[in-house]
Amino acid sequence: MPSVRGAHATGVVRLGIGDDAAVLAPRVGSEWVLSCDQFVEGVHFRAESYPADSVGYKSLVRATSDLAAMGATPQFFLLTLALPAKRTGKWLDAVLRGMGRAARQLGMQLAGGDTTRSQKVSMSITVLGDRNPASAVTRAGARLGDAVCVSGRLGCAAWGLRLMERHTGARRAGTSRLLQPHLYPKIRIELGAWLARNRVASAMMDISDGLSTDLARLCRASGVGARLWTGRIPCVKIPDAAERLLRGRRPDPLRLALHGGEDYELVFTVPRRNLKRLRGAPGFGEIAAIGEIERGDGITIVGADGRERRLEPGGWDPFS
Amino acid sequence: MPSVRGAHATGVVRLGIGDDAAVLAPRVGSEWVLSCDQFVEGVHFRAESYPADSVGYKSLVRATSDLAAMGATPQFFLLTLALPAKRTGKWLDAVLRGMGRAARQLGMQLAGGDTTRSQKVSMSITVLGDRNPASAVTRAGARLGDAVCVSGRLGCAAWGLRLMERHTGARRAGTSRLLQPHLYPKIRIELGAWLARNRVASAMMDISDGLSTDLARLCRASGVGARLWTGRIPCVKIPDAAERLLRGRRPDPLRLALHGGEDYELVFTVPRRNLKRLRGAPGFGEIAAIGEIERGDGITIVGADGRERRLEPGGWDPFS
Repeated sequence: MPSVRGAHATGVVRLGIGDDAAVLAPRVGSEWVLSCDQFVEGVHFRAESYPADSVGYKSLVRATSDLAAMGATPQFFLLTLALPAKRTGKWLDAVLRGMGRAARQLGMQLAGGDTTRSQKVSMSITVLGDRNPASAVTRAGARLGDAVCVSGRLGCAAWGLRLMERHTGARRAGTSRLLQPHLYPKIRIELGAWLARNRVASAMMDISDGLSTDLARLCRASGVGARLWTGRIPCVKIPDAAERLLRGRRPDPLRLALHGGEDYELVFTVPRRNLKRLRGAPGFGEIAAIGEIERGDGITIVGADGRERRLEPGGWDPFS
Repeated sequence: MPSVRGAHATGVVRLGIGDDAAVLAPRVGSEWVLSCDQFVEGVHFRAESYPADSVGYKSLVRATSDLAAMGATPQFFLLTLALPAKRTGKWLDAVLRGMGRAARQLGMQLAGGDTTRSQKVSMSITVLGDRNPASAVTRAGARLGDAVCVSGRLGCAAWGLRLMERHTGARRAGTSRLLQPHLYPKIRIELGAWLARNRVASAMMDISDGLSTDLARLCRASGVGARLWTGRIPCVKIPDAAERLLRGRRPDPLRLALHGGEDYELVFTVPRRNLKRLRGAPGFGEIAAIGEIERGDGITIVGADGRERRLEPGGWDPFS
């Protein structure tokens, strides 16, 4: 397999690709955070219409997003790749180029892999990061009265996906910028690590399956409910030009923000007493307080007109 | 996902399934060994004809085999599972039961996972073990004059596969014992750890793709050649009853032993001065010295008649 190597990785891989397994020497006093994720042709991407380098780029970024949500610093990844013979040449080279770019950006190093054949491309990635055990933040720490915060603008990736699916000419029509959040997502490593290190967040997770689904998971893990105000949710902006591409079928930005997946932004809760310190967070200008933790077991959403309704999880379910 | 949990695992998982990622606290002074492996429907198994619990059992055992070859003690695994909706019920339960049994036998604990849908079942497993850094043994340490040794009887798994493929009535015909090495392979954790800990082996790897292929890899990594004597290679025994099942088409046991994959036995090299100490190895009675390391870059095999020929790798290649 061609090599993929991160530029900034620490030198703790004792033995990498080529032997039966990788050998890693953990740093004394750190704990390791591990997660795994899959990226499957026909489920998460289409090999025909997606730029091959985006397949490689995104597969690593989305796997690493869980580490950001745990406040960990990404270090290594292992890649298992199943693919048909027709995808082993130029296409695979481009995939690995994209993955290498993501690895460099994230400071990660490939520590192992396995390749086999299959009818459809399937990538499975295990990521490892480390963190100081004192910086632990989980999904389960949200408490009554905490502010519910999100990073970034939600729904951008879902909107990019919509454009990809509905209008194959989107890239030609000068809207390729709008596809970026779907094809080459960014993740909030620095913010996640800062929130954990400074003990500002009481609970945190990444928004991979949509805010309505992921915040519900955070609430369930913490044994609490949440109340959101629609007016405070930073939604994707849909330019008029793009609307024309869809021939007037303008999607609802709030719907995309609530239920659209793959933004890989962070949702986290902040105790009131920590809100002032939050101003020192990296990218503070892109953080919005959208609601608060309350008693109960679900999410209530308050519209612009003051009316309340229950927000049901409407995000990504692979078996739906 | 139903839970899979090993009984003997050490208590260093700080946070397991349910959060974004697993958190592990490495033992001070140990190094970690990581490997990943895939088990794909239609490539490695058939979902229709294989007992579901064997799919779970074997997928974990074969992934863990690389740890045995590194002299590591298995500790954790992460599982990504892609499967069609029709396989999410009873079938999946049985798979996870088989995997749980393997985890208990191997002393491993599930530390994370991800599930998605796909047309075919695909399992990707990352395994983690630890070892003392002083016990490092790789593929690359074989030196001129070292004895080439293997554990167990080779070709049993390939023979089981042949029976599965050619004779669907094999299980009914009282030959199910012959299928065991293919369906429920054993691996040499104890032997691998002993060889590494006692610094008896100079190089080691597991025989997953067939002796001819895997020994060639060991030789290439070590920059040496090897000479084997066919009479010394412990080959699968093919009972007459089984031969009748195949209507006289008796496979060549030596061919199965040399090129048949999935035995998950160990091939390792032992400096002459260590051969006496080898007698203390667990399962010493099942170890055979089959040849020696020599100058060159390939494998020479010496027949019963003293004639020499070059042994070309004939094992498993997923893209062949």
